[in-house]
Amino acid sequence: MRLFRDKSSSAESHLAHVQEHFLYHLGISSATTDIPATFKDVKFVCIGGTASRMEELAQHLAGELGLLLNGRSDVMRCSPKTERYSLFKVGPVLCASHGIGVASASVLLHELFKLIHLAGCVDVTLLRIGTCGGVGVEEGTVIISDGAVNGQLRHVYTWNVLGKPIERPVVADLDLVSELQACAKVGDHFPTIVGTTLCTDDFYEGQARLDGALCSFTVQDKVTFLLRLRELGVRNIEMESAGVLALCHAVGIRAAVACVCLVDRLVSEEPKNKSDLLEEYQRRPQMLAVRFIKSRLAAL
Amino acid sequence: MRLFRDKSSSAESHLAHVQEHFLYHLGISSATTDIPATFKDVKFVCIGGTASRMEELAQHLAGELGLLLNGRSDVMRCSPKTERYSLFKVGPVLCASHGIGVASASVLLHELFKLIHLAGCVDVTLLRIGTCGGVGVEEGTVIISDGAVNGQLRHVYTWNVLGKPIERPVVADLDLVSELQACAKVGDHFPTIVGTTLCTDDFYEGQARLDGALCSFTVQDKVTFLLRLRELGVRNIEMESAGVLALCHAVGIRAAVACVCLVDRLVSEEPKNKSDLLEEYQRRPQMLAVRFIKSRLAAL
Repeated sequence: MRLFRDKSSSAESHLAHVQEHFLYHLGISSATTDIPATFKDVKFVCIGGTASRMEELAQHLAGELGLLLNGRSDVMRCSPKTERYSLFKVGPVLCASHGIGVASASVLLHELFKLIHLAGCVDVTLLRIGTCGGVGVEEGTVIISDGAVNGQLRHVYTWNVLGKPIERPVVADLDLVSELQACAKVGDHFPTIVGTTLCTDDFYEGQARLDGALCSFTVQDKVTFLLRLRELGVRNIEMESAGVLALCHAVGIRAAVACVCLVDRLVSEEPKNKSDLLEEYQRRPQMLAVRFIKSRLAAL
Repeated sequence: MRLFRDKSSSAESHLAHVQEHFLYHLGISSATTDIPATFKDVKFVCIGGTASRMEELAQHLAGELGLLLNGRSDVMRCSPKTERYSLFKVGPVLCASHGIGVASASVLLHELFKLIHLAGCVDVTLLRIGTCGGVGVEEGTVIISDGAVNGQLRHVYTWNVLGKPIERPVVADLDLVSELQACAKVGDHFPTIVGTTLCTDDFYEGQARLDGALCSFTVQDKVTFLLRLRELGVRNIEMESAGVLALCHAVGIRAAVACVCLVDRLVSEEPKNKSDLLEEYQRRPQMLAVRFIKSRLAAL
């Protein structure tokens, strides 16, 4: 795997001169962890918002992958630090929590990319599985992103480097989108669709919610905005997709985003369902990820 | 307290028509929690990155405030949900974790502002206490922000609302800065200084680190940038200050930011000290916050 597709990047040469690699927020050091021995077999990285959800996925994978992996499917806790992010490993799968927003997710991604690079992993696929608001989409629907736009509705995400903005293109891997979509089963009791995702840097104003502490627009402004999103092909709204897809594209890791809709924003601002139903919704993109990983492993 | 200073804001009118107020990420509902009875006495809100650090602060406050509050100083866990944020209450003080980055912090702030508003709190002061990199500043120094700039070195923070950028001014309350500075004691074994803070949306590229997974600049570019920051009065770098100060200013809540320096970025990319020393550093801005709160309460 060529980690640094970005031709302008000099990261590889900087990293080559580092004696001890310390993944600060994960608490993993190359001085105390044999990173190649521990992580070289990684082929899949699943990321999602919360530690509890990612641990649940890791446990689920441990059960599902047992036979395929000849029993090597215990859940290994890999991050000595857990205040910021939690990292689990199940055979060839890493599961990590990224918190809320692109800034939080980008810190994790830098450290995961370094881990993958230092371990010498090849052909790694990253899946973000999460929750979202829908735009004219029924609650419980899983949306696979065929692209993502930033808060200004452009297919880029912007980072400030040395005080100046640099835009990175947000590119979805459409082969991977199709492969994931094929993992949705006819018998599923919920729909899985493909659509564009709006990635915002704020849950309230940025997502046109009327119930934030600050709100400078009317109900009509909100509805007009959401209908405009529909016309642009946007089917869901969350807070990490564009940043995740842009960073993965920049380093040459295939990535996709699949989120379950907790509330149709044309109907309501906040999820109204009971928490046990919301919990069940959150397992739906996990199911998709597990099927995808099993199908890939079975084909090896 | 006038919660919504922003004249263009129609939030108050929207919220007035909501039957049940649900602070989604905190898991607090006005249907099941008597918000005024529980929170009306709040005068101070302390926010910081991790749940463990904010719980430690709450426990510390419980010990320190016992006498002043006639024993009403137990730590109350206020957030039924803890996957995203944790919220503690000790007498008139709320302590909450905000995760990493402005996006994550902004979700918490919207919900805390609503809580304060619904509870009818008056004269609330918010402190962010956290960790940072220093710019020509010794490790272990506490820096109180007399202003904050965004990743493009401007005293604004930008949110995208209905697809368009809106800039909010980042304004520090200099009276509060002086009051906090006065809480540093002559006998302290560490310096407390005042300076401007660079608030970035990324830990690696945004803070001119050479050891991220992506890096498009040279060692010389990094040093030139950090020295330019020094000339602009920037003494530390973190990831929430500008957003926190801008949002608090927009709703009329007095706010300040005090962070301890874990590494001088002119010397190193990552903190090199042992974790127990880093833990001790992290208690320094907490000490400042505790002294400030005790001094305010004693003056009542």
